[in-house]
Amino acid sequence: MAGKVPVMCGVDIGGTLAKTVVYIPDGWGRGDGGGATNEIQAALGRQGWTEEDLRVEVEGGCLVFFKFVSSAALATTKLIEKLGLLPKGSQLHVTGGGAFKYKHVFEDALGVAPCVHDEMESLVRGLTVLRNFKHECFSLKNILFQGATGADRESIQAVWTDLDVEKGFLIVNIGSGVSFVHCTKNRKNGKETFERIGGSSLGGSTFLGLTALLTGVDRFDDAIDLAANGDSAAVDMLVKDIYGDKQVYNLKPTTLASSFGKMVSKRARKKAAPEDLALSTLIMCSMNVAALAHLHAKSKNAKHVVFTGSFLTGNGSNSIRQETNKFGLNSHSERHLHRRNRIAMRTLAYALAFWTKGEKQAIFLKHDGFLGAVGSLSLGVGDIIGQPNSSSSRL
Amino acid sequence: MAGKVPVMCGVDIGGTLAKTVVYIPDGWGRGDGGGATNEIQAALGRQGWTEEDLRVEVEGGCLVFFKFVSSAALATTKLIEKLGLLPKGSQLHVTGGGAFKYKHVFEDALGVAPCVHDEMESLVRGLTVLRNFKHECFSLKNILFQGATGADRESIQAVWTDLDVEKGFLIVNIGSGVSFVHCTKNRKNGKETFERIGGSSLGGSTFLGLTALLTGVDRFDDAIDLAANGDSAAVDMLVKDIYGDKQVYNLKPTTLASSFGKMVSKRARKKAAPEDLALSTLIMCSMNVAALAHLHAKSKNAKHVVFTGSFLTGNGSNSIRQETNKFGLNSHSERHLHRRNRIAMRTLAYALAFWTKGEKQAIFLKHDGFLGAVGSLSLGVGDIIGQPNSSSSRL
Repeated sequence: MAGKVPVMCGVDIGGTLAKTVVYIPDGWGRGDGGGATNEIQAALGRQGWTEEDLRVEVEGGCLVFFKFVSSAALATTKLIEKLGLLPKGSQLHVTGGGAFKYKHVFEDALGVAPCVHDEMESLVRGLTVLRNFKHECFSLKNILFQGATGADRESIQAVWTDLDVEKGFLIVNIGSGVSFVHCTKNRKNGKETFERIGGSSLGGSTFLGLTALLTGVDRFDDAIDLAANGDSAAVDMLVKDIYGDKQVYNLKPTTLASSFGKMVSKRARKKAAPEDLALSTLIMCSMNVAALAHLHAKSKNAKHVVFTGSFLTGNGSNSIRQETNKFGLNSHSERHLHRRNRIAMRTLAYALAFWTKGEKQAIFLKHDGFLGAVGSLSLGVGDIIGQPNSSSSRL
Repeated sequence: MAGKVPVMCGVDIGGTLAKTVVYIPDGWGRGDGGGATNEIQAALGRQGWTEEDLRVEVEGGCLVFFKFVSSAALATTKLIEKLGLLPKGSQLHVTGGGAFKYKHVFEDALGVAPCVHDEMESLVRGLTVLRNFKHECFSLKNILFQGATGADRESIQAVWTDLDVEKGFLIVNIGSGVSFVHCTKNRKNGKETFERIGGSSLGGSTFLGLTALLTGVDRFDDAIDLAANGDSAAVDMLVKDIYGDKQVYNLKPTTLASSFGKMVSKRARKKAAPEDLALSTLIMCSMNVAALAHLHAKSKNAKHVVFTGSFLTGNGSNSIRQETNKFGLNSHSERHLHRRNRIAMRTLAYALAFWTKGEKQAIFLKHDGFLGAVGSLSLGVGDIIGQPNSSSSRL
């Protein structure tokens, strides 16, 4: 692209939430007809949710992230236009399950049809862009799985990690269901390609759908909060429930043997609390994704497994955003963990390390939830937003 | 073993049911103090469940199979002794999750401690014995997966198949949870070994526990019957529910995208019938086992996957035994299919063929449920019961 780069937007619109990235070039807002970046971010925050510590400085500008409720697409698009974020004639880049449903809404608001990008392609491209930033990928250390309880360990630490692109890696996208995507790099020409190598119907909506049926709680963040106070040993059959305290097949007595296994007994069903049922559901879904991820990674000889998707990020509503830091992390750079589905992350990281004897590593992302938005914009406008600022990476 | 082979018993005692095999030597019952084989079988049938068409003629005798309720172990053991099936001083060979719990019961009844054998070793040995019989292993042909409905297809056919031992095979034992066992044969010395290569907590008790929570039905056979009348499309999110009728990632619009995915909506929860919920649970568990089996088989380059365990056989109670033949099979040799969890079998066979493009094959067993019993006896007494009758194999 020659000349001055304009302000640009990418939106990943799902059934519930729309995740949005805005590229704001340096100097924009000082005479371009828009407000300063901080004012823009504040205005977007009032329409949805935004967080300053997710902002990334890139070559020639910065990326600002925010989410809004999909059903408010019309009002939000009008706000985006009013703020000057979509200059006359410029195109909105859109992806996600709701891209087709909301296409006419964007067109009505802007007068220009949005450019719709493939969901999986946007996801992979988004990761390709974001992984260039120094503090994007992280792994979890000191994970001691709490057996059947949901309590967090103070010892868990998030550690920034570089994604091993050369050897190929796996992306596990946990949305309503699960997709397993293998990404490889051609050693000769450096070209990166990806392939969807499998799927599973046990995903985020399985957790929420089952929890809703079993407890009546059907908001994702509430279901996660419920699970955090549960004891899944009241619901699940453990190895010791079958074999007593002797060790069989190298499995600890506290190893999960059968999810919901105790619920075949009427007496046990009467004793199981909603919290316990929610936690069992959460652990069942997480452990199962980890088991499948392990086998897919093994079959492709990939070391790093990137877990992403709405199952891990929740919907970023206030209840999650304002909760206390239960990961035991206090530094500014690790604050983004607050908002996550911590039990699922811990279970995924633990189970993958357990099954592979530490050979495979679970990777999580600071900007999880925004891969599709960043990717759709990058697919639309090229490499322009893909270059990290050479001087610093803002945390 | 030199001299005349005595009558012998092997028992696989689980939490609910005990599966038993009795070896009756030719000529026994004519002067040995016991009744004739048919009378024995009738007496055992009155104490539990037995079926004449499961009887197998072996070199020098025959194997008779029956099940009884584990909690009736004392009365049943006394009956076995009274029938002359455990001559003075002979040992009972026992395996299964209840082997330790019921050890003293057997000892009290017989005056001799039973010989307890490892569960997994018994399972593998049982298959090694039974697979020698001509009509033991079978696969399913003409499986057209009914998408989201539980209706059976008239076109499904059971076909006797020889297990491919030379290339190694996978045993998937679906009990409360699931165990994946890889069996290999050394090409040089012909020695067979096995290894438990993985497990899953989504097994038979997950199906029954969840179904019990969601519908109140907590007897296995009743839960299966309930599922047979369900429509899982009322509960699950299909690909078309997300993307409409366009084909994405080579997935048909009717492909299952998210188990229980529709249940995040309160309105959909109100419309879901108990039958629908039971079927969704059954399909979720079956599809997931097939997905894991596929990946394990791929990693070991095994062609045949033997599915076995209580999830497939139910508990053999009358309601299942007497139900009409819904597989569309009428010949005598295929009648044993009546008693099975047909939806699970069909789903496993279909999913494995789908994911492997027909490369891997699901194998089922005529004597499923009795592997442990046969194996424990064989481990105890050696090869004596392992030789099929050279002249014929009774169906």
